[in-house]
Amino acid sequence: MDFTAWQKAIEQELDKTGFTAEPKTLYEPARYILALGGKRLRPILTLLACGLYAEAKKAMPQAVAVEVFHNFTLMHDDIMDAAPLRRGQPTVHHKWNVNTAILSGDAMLVKAYQLLANCDAEHLPALLKVFSQTAIEVCEGQQLDMDFETQPSVSEEEYIRMIQLKTSVLLGCALQMGAIVGGANAQDAANLYRFGLLMGTSFQIKDDVLDCFGNPEKVGKQVGGDIISNKKTLLLIHALKTAKGADAENLQKWLVARTFNPLEKVEAIKSIYQNNGTDAYAQAQINAYYKQAIRHLGALSLAPEKVKPLYDFAAWLLHREA
Amino acid sequence: MDFTAWQKAIEQELDKTGFTAEPKTLYEPARYILALGGKRLRPILTLLACGLYAEAKKAMPQAVAVEVFHNFTLMHDDIMDAAPLRRGQPTVHHKWNVNTAILSGDAMLVKAYQLLANCDAEHLPALLKVFSQTAIEVCEGQQLDMDFETQPSVSEEEYIRMIQLKTSVLLGCALQMGAIVGGANAQDAANLYRFGLLMGTSFQIKDDVLDCFGNPEKVGKQVGGDIISNKKTLLLIHALKTAKGADAENLQKWLVARTFNPLEKVEAIKSIYQNNGTDAYAQAQINAYYKQAIRHLGALSLAPEKVKPLYDFAAWLLHREA
Repeated sequence: MDFTAWQKAIEQELDKTGFTAEPKTLYEPARYILALGGKRLRPILTLLACGLYAEAKKAMPQAVAVEVFHNFTLMHDDIMDAAPLRRGQPTVHHKWNVNTAILSGDAMLVKAYQLLANCDAEHLPALLKVFSQTAIEVCEGQQLDMDFETQPSVSEEEYIRMIQLKTSVLLGCALQMGAIVGGANAQDAANLYRFGLLMGTSFQIKDDVLDCFGNPEKVGKQVGGDIISNKKTLLLIHALKTAKGADAENLQKWLVARTFNPLEKVEAIKSIYQNNGTDAYAQAQINAYYKQAIRHLGALSLAPEKVKPLYDFAAWLLHREA
Repeated sequence: MDFTAWQKAIEQELDKTGFTAEPKTLYEPARYILALGGKRLRPILTLLACGLYAEAKKAMPQAVAVEVFHNFTLMHDDIMDAAPLRRGQPTVHHKWNVNTAILSGDAMLVKAYQLLANCDAEHLPALLKVFSQTAIEVCEGQQLDMDFETQPSVSEEEYIRMIQLKTSVLLGCALQMGAIVGGANAQDAANLYRFGLLMGTSFQIKDDVLDCFGNPEKVGKQVGGDIISNKKTLLLIHALKTAKGADAENLQKWLVARTFNPLEKVEAIKSIYQNNGTDAYAQAQINAYYKQAIRHLGALSLAPEKVKPLYDFAAWLLHREA
């Protein structure tokens, strides 16, 4: 399925969000990060969900709100992660400075609320409720992600909770907002939220797997970054818990090594993951969350053929190579 | 007039805002900055405005929202200004770190929206509209304030616009939100906003004057910080534009001096301001904005005795020494 037309429509709307106002020093970084591209997954989900019940474009303001919010989080996360690049281009705090990235991000968060509120008054309380709850959870997820860096060990359960807060809840929110604007009943809206939450969990684990086992040409960047930085992904957590004998010893050796050849470390740990069945375990988790997600589409009050775009979208995410 | 009882009621509510949740690393800095004190001017204004039309406490969630928002801006501004202290205590980015201050601030902004939404559904669109517009303007004001640091010259008009965006609009917003929740008609709500905007302008010029001419024992901090840093306040802008002869030469000399005795610089520039009538000019501006502000109270649809608390509040701000 091809979502290019949707992406284009969203990008046209993003161009109209008012990030052209004065002072330029505040708004230009917002335009810059929004123009870096990306798959526009979240706003597409909002439009698809709305389209199940009404004209999809009715939820365009909310779709754009979700994308602006997502990019606000990227701008601030990039500061916190001291990331020099985003989608191959300099991050805002590198191209401008940290203060600019803080304040421009703040303005984007407020702008997201302004966009969101562009709806029938009857839907505003429900939209605000799910959006604010989600925004708070995304902050909590980012905080947990940072906390995990210095925490000696992280359980698989803690990790799943963290990625759900940091990533998956926003996919759920994007869908639920579209459903609300489209006029879905409360049960459908809740099922679409759950679909997004679980699909988002599958999506994030897949991201971790691609960072490790992806094809660099397709992923569009060097792989192995998580391995090099000892990031506590599902892969590492699983291997730490289950690896035995030489695999366990080697893994520890690589984790504490202070000087190493990065490529060698990446290859060595990938081998351990494969030897230990960690790659297969992660793939099984991806599939399991996907299956759980899909079940919530089956629970909607609509004929399955009506829901086909969301099935297609989920399948596209599951099988993506980048 | 004594607003201590109002301050206490607001602080009790602040204690209940949910900044006790997990992860502590996210929420503790929010509790910390909110507990540093302050006059709680903004939430008092919200309650006073609501009290003109209904029970004052009906607007408590919006009052607390305004105070949480204000403290979010302080937390982020302190990073941008590299400020080590806030109300005599370490700032959040000093006590914790910059990342914590960014993310905890973000969560406070979202929390402000959650608090705000705690109202009759009929009032939600109007509340959101004024709050988001104000929040965007506060970001713009902070950006202009930073831009002015490197801008060779700033006109009095630009300066007034900057302080209105950075400070005054939030006082207007605080009042208007109280009026909306209390059920005021649109004209009264607009007059209360204007009263806040103009009183806030008077208030901020007074702040600049106190930073220069205040009694350190009463202000509770060393005065002259703006002079030492060549901050383009109304005082400096006026003196640069109007000083003649030796005053003008001396002023330039002090502004470009790379090494100097801070106390000597403060005393010298204060003398120039006094000699040049700059202090009197600033006081005249404080009084003029105050008078304009008060006029909007006279335009309300209420009997003057009903509005007395707001007159008292404005007079208290005008005559304060700290």
